[in-house]
Amino acid sequence: MTTNVSTVPAYAAPAANAPLERTTVPRRPVGEHDVLIDIKYSGICHSDIHQARDGWGEGIFPMVPGHEIAGIVAEVGPGVTKFQVGDRVGVGCFVDSCRECEYCAQGLEQYCARGMTGTYNALDENGEPTYGGYSGHIVVDENYTLRIPEGIDLDEAAPLLCAGITLYSPLAHWEAGPGKKVAIVGLGGLGHMGVKIAHAMGAEVTVLSQSLKKQEDGLKLGADHYYATSDPATFTELAGTFDLVISTVSAPLDFNAYLGLVRTGGALVNVGAPEEPVSLSLFSLIGGRKTLAGSMIGGIAETQEMLDFCAAHGLGAEIEVIRAEQINEAYERVLASDVRYRFVIDASTI
Amino acid sequence: MTTNVSTVPAYAAPAANAPLERTTVPRRPVGEHDVLIDIKYSGICHSDIHQARDGWGEGIFPMVPGHEIAGIVAEVGPGVTKFQVGDRVGVGCFVDSCRECEYCAQGLEQYCARGMTGTYNALDENGEPTYGGYSGHIVVDENYTLRIPEGIDLDEAAPLLCAGITLYSPLAHWEAGPGKKVAIVGLGGLGHMGVKIAHAMGAEVTVLSQSLKKQEDGLKLGADHYYATSDPATFTELAGTFDLVISTVSAPLDFNAYLGLVRTGGALVNVGAPEEPVSLSLFSLIGGRKTLAGSMIGGIAETQEMLDFCAAHGLGAEIEVIRAEQINEAYERVLASDVRYRFVIDASTI
Repeated sequence: MTTNVSTVPAYAAPAANAPLERTTVPRRPVGEHDVLIDIKYSGICHSDIHQARDGWGEGIFPMVPGHEIAGIVAEVGPGVTKFQVGDRVGVGCFVDSCRECEYCAQGLEQYCARGMTGTYNALDENGEPTYGGYSGHIVVDENYTLRIPEGIDLDEAAPLLCAGITLYSPLAHWEAGPGKKVAIVGLGGLGHMGVKIAHAMGAEVTVLSQSLKKQEDGLKLGADHYYATSDPATFTELAGTFDLVISTVSAPLDFNAYLGLVRTGGALVNVGAPEEPVSLSLFSLIGGRKTLAGSMIGGIAETQEMLDFCAAHGLGAEIEVIRAEQINEAYERVLASDVRYRFVIDASTI
Repeated sequence: MTTNVSTVPAYAAPAANAPLERTTVPRRPVGEHDVLIDIKYSGICHSDIHQARDGWGEGIFPMVPGHEIAGIVAEVGPGVTKFQVGDRVGVGCFVDSCRECEYCAQGLEQYCARGMTGTYNALDENGEPTYGGYSGHIVVDENYTLRIPEGIDLDEAAPLLCAGITLYSPLAHWEAGPGKKVAIVGLGGLGHMGVKIAHAMGAEVTVLSQSLKKQEDGLKLGADHYYATSDPATFTELAGTFDLVISTVSAPLDFNAYLGLVRTGGALVNVGAPEEPVSLSLFSLIGGRKTLAGSMIGGIAETQEMLDFCAAHGLGAEIEVIRAEQINEAYERVLASDVRYRFVIDASTI
């Protein structure tokens, strides 16, 4: 492998809603501060499907999804100081940001005032499209590359780069920990990481799922309690219980009902992204100084903190490893909630 | 005046939507820990009108509104330690709470788990209706009585007991102060106190009002900037500007537009109470870890802190003192936003 990597194998959606197929995409030469990563595993995130099917607006096609990337450093640019060839590394949802705005300066690159550069479905500073992790290799600036500590297998680490940080960030920001009651709404790719992380932080964890189908799993993952939201009694029994409720679901919820589960001074934080607006009674907030908030992934330093936390607590994602040719089938299964709890592509099959 | 005060003059709404008229209401004897207050002034709050006209559900009639009460202690029970006859005192939105729950223990009596006892339109622990400040005297437990410091006239102090604390509490909780940009939506009874208090706290204050009609007033009250929300350019010019936006209006706002004015990590806090649900896109929150919150008056200790703060900074409400027989006319003027900025009843005319 030289600095003149020009094309790498990838799976791409050639157009909106078209099935993904094997192709090649260009990667830039390894620059001064770049690392070339030999991708080993790439997680399938629900938002990959959203974007490949153009649910969030105009996508850039062909699109190579994938922002849960785990691999090994294969080459480093001459100015790279943080990584060496052979290091275990990860890449999450973005690969660059302006590095100058107040949010970047605070380590909140995900909220960069000029907009972060997405790992895929974005344009880089030269106006070239970015291509994600469903691919053999990727070239990324060392400052947007994470270290995956020993103690987490790369396949179980990949989903931490999006699902893990998406839950870790609000759990840390809203101070989940001993003495705090935390509810995780939805036990999917995001939710199952929320249960693991909140439990490891020392919080008392409740899963709120549509049914009790996954109850056994939820308790094994670290939940203390498990309730079905299809049962109206759940909302009376648990009224005013939680310091923090994190909703991971994309379906629009009855937010007034969920705010009823929040204690005075507590928060309902949304990390799922319903496409339709929701209806909210402000009395649901006023009567208990409650907050309804949103949170989106995390910054680079916080993502590293999350990886270190997960390694220290022996946490990885629950995964089903697939071959690349199963991607389209896996998409259908994700949409049918038929995965426990994250598909991870074995990149050697790309 | 003896401990057998039984009836006092008052203005009451005999039934929902009926004009208020002069009557008498009973007051309990002065108990062990009670103070009898000779009411000097009583503010007219928008919520008085809501409740007298039954906008919030089943009211208790006859109803004597008034929860912005300023007066002089006329008598104290034998166990009273905090007040003496002649002290300048105030009473706000509640006159009792359970005193045992975790919220009461934290000084958040307004969020008492068993429900605070409203100063009017509520039932006390004996099941007797409470009657508010549009009245000659009131008997209140010393623990729910506030001290009005020297340095604020009683007429200008009365509205602090609701309008003042309603703004002070979220400004303090969300840390308005030097270096922070605060917007106050609506320049009415609540909003004008928000401008004064936020300015005194050292924040850079912007008024967002429907029109520029009250701009001169707003700047005099302490605002640094004044914008009309009827001008769409306001929302582009001020995008991502404010650490804290406090909405004091009861009309339903376009919350997505107002969240666009909030910085990453900032909050939009509602203290007005639109009766209709609002429509909210969760992307308005997720993209900048923003919070939409609510806040309701304040606890006893915080209300005292607010009064002391206002006295230290020479802040009182801007008022128009009226005679009791003008109450019904004043209600119409409040509904027409024709008051700068609070009506206060001279209780000697009741």
